[in-house]
Amino acid sequence: MSEFRKDPLKGTWVITENQRVRQPREFLVDRQQTKVTTCPFCPGQEDKTPAEVFALRPDNSAANQPGWQVRVVPNKFPKLRIEGELSQQTTGLNQSMHGIGAHEVIIETADHKRSLAQLEITEIADVLKAYRARLLDLRQDPRFRYLQIFKNHGLEAGAPLPHSHSQLMAVPITPPVTRDELNACRTHFNTTGNCLVCDLLAQEIADGRRVVFNDGDFLILAPYASCSPFELRLFPLEHNHDFALQDDLELTACAKALQDMLRRLHGLLQDPPYNFILHTSPPHHADPNNQGYWEALPQSYHWHIELVPRLSQIAGFEWGSGFYVNPLPPEDAAAFLRGTDPNLNF
Amino acid sequence: MSEFRKDPLKGTWVITENQRVRQPREFLVDRQQTKVTTCPFCPGQEDKTPAEVFALRPDNSAANQPGWQVRVVPNKFPKLRIEGELSQQTTGLNQSMHGIGAHEVIIETADHKRSLAQLEITEIADVLKAYRARLLDLRQDPRFRYLQIFKNHGLEAGAPLPHSHSQLMAVPITPPVTRDELNACRTHFNTTGNCLVCDLLAQEIADGRRVVFNDGDFLILAPYASCSPFELRLFPLEHNHDFALQDDLELTACAKALQDMLRRLHGLLQDPPYNFILHTSPPHHADPNNQGYWEALPQSYHWHIELVPRLSQIAGFEWGSGFYVNPLPPEDAAAFLRGTDPNLNF
Repeated sequence: MSEFRKDPLKGTWVITENQRVRQPREFLVDRQQTKVTTCPFCPGQEDKTPAEVFALRPDNSAANQPGWQVRVVPNKFPKLRIEGELSQQTTGLNQSMHGIGAHEVIIETADHKRSLAQLEITEIADVLKAYRARLLDLRQDPRFRYLQIFKNHGLEAGAPLPHSHSQLMAVPITPPVTRDELNACRTHFNTTGNCLVCDLLAQEIADGRRVVFNDGDFLILAPYASCSPFELRLFPLEHNHDFALQDDLELTACAKALQDMLRRLHGLLQDPPYNFILHTSPPHHADPNNQGYWEALPQSYHWHIELVPRLSQIAGFEWGSGFYVNPLPPEDAAAFLRGTDPNLNF
Repeated sequence: MSEFRKDPLKGTWVITENQRVRQPREFLVDRQQTKVTTCPFCPGQEDKTPAEVFALRPDNSAANQPGWQVRVVPNKFPKLRIEGELSQQTTGLNQSMHGIGAHEVIIETADHKRSLAQLEITEIADVLKAYRARLLDLRQDPRFRYLQIFKNHGLEAGAPLPHSHSQLMAVPITPPVTRDELNACRTHFNTTGNCLVCDLLAQEIADGRRVVFNDGDFLILAPYASCSPFELRLFPLEHNHDFALQDDLELTACAKALQDMLRRLHGLLQDPPYNFILHTSPPHHADPNNQGYWEALPQSYHWHIELVPRLSQIAGFEWGSGFYVNPLPPEDAAAFLRGTDPNLNF
């Protein structure tokens, strides 16, 4: 079983995998895309993945057969496994915890050749509905402190398989990035009585320089302190802390904005590699050490999607300091993206 | 002038560069190494860099002429500039600070073809002496809270120029990674009266599974919670908080261990791309908000070098959560490296 390990000096948590012995040659730098002869995510290959945990099947076809439009399966090579007890070990200064969790793959389309950006709005909305269904199911497990949905697109963004998919990891420790956001939102709420994101959106709309898209339902921003060129965040304008509580109409509005975001990037930067991450409320029970996250969370937190194109590398300075260096001011990135036709080449 | 910007939601600090207008085509993913016709770091090309701020010239040759063995110059395209006043701005929820700092390049050898791993111990010691000289000089500037020395080796580690060099960035804000380390060390010292690193080294030596090298002066460890395969840390066994206070003998012992570390990695992983970072004490005056860092710092902090081979990518999960996933247990990495002859191929 893999395990979570905590660094006593830096405080970072790492999932250390140890399911099988690996050889050094597996880590030689490889600049080639993995050649896959048969794609395990294509229709007809359902037996190449573990049994599905969710699928949208417009034709009411049987589970684990072709006919699906979106399909969710456990990862065949999970970073974390769902079976087992949470248990912490301390050996002197070293702390660890069993690698309990869930690791699922959301296959976004049956078509091997279409990227998420190329899907229609209704198809993207169906992907979002699959996210919602998995969040609602997995949050019933009291061992999970957070459910992280993310997408890696392109080799440079960590996706060796080209068939369009996103992933879900359920983790037994509140992720540091989530903890910092929750803390910032709680502090702002305790000080002002307002949601930090709502206040930020009002300020950014009034300023205007970093706004890429605003249709009255959703807003796309190039964040003021973007860590890298063309970083974007997508927010619902109406306050809501929890993605899983959005109804079908709201998910369709979100899909419209997400499609716009992906198509502008595709048009401007020739289908760049990117990661996106859903930032949403932790489950109700996830209040580590009774820190009072939850009570004000519906008022103080505001879900959103963060998108980072992988156009630059994290090198020694960024790794060593925790600072980032961005060669493109977000005001310029927003202007370039506003000037890009989202429907060009689609 | 570039500026530091703080993200109100995530709390991250970013250096936003704005010295010139950039075009989107500059950010298209490029998988080619930059072709440089004339290397600006080679002897005879001294006029291609800003005037040197330090050099080791065994032949007593004149500044900015050939004859040097190690040469330190300001970066021609600095991320931060040394001229100007520190000044903070707040616009609603957005905070920024002028991009004041220093950004220098340490050219480690006059020979374009030799990597740091290929240098002799005395030559590596001279590179370390250049680090020390620049630390001692720049820490006199009261605007700088931290002096970060790091090296990017190889294209995948962020080094587009192949001529072997490292870099120094002086920053006006304590880096988050440094702050977390100082806090962990201070907490341990306040609780136990001991240096966290000294206690950790004793524990790791007794355990033995993660030790790669120990010659009684320096120790190389694969850290218990390594974020990525073959991550290593190099520590002086004798407690010392400040790299700049090490004498020539100690730097030579450090060079011996550093050479061993680089040569084992080179031998095992075919000259992998890597970053290394010097973690050392902040200057005396750098006690942000009087948090009491400094008073116990000589007892509580312990300088070291962190090395991270760039063999895997940071993807959506790592970016979104702040967790890392390491497919190779550090116990295995240490065993592989112990079994590698550091003098093979050299």
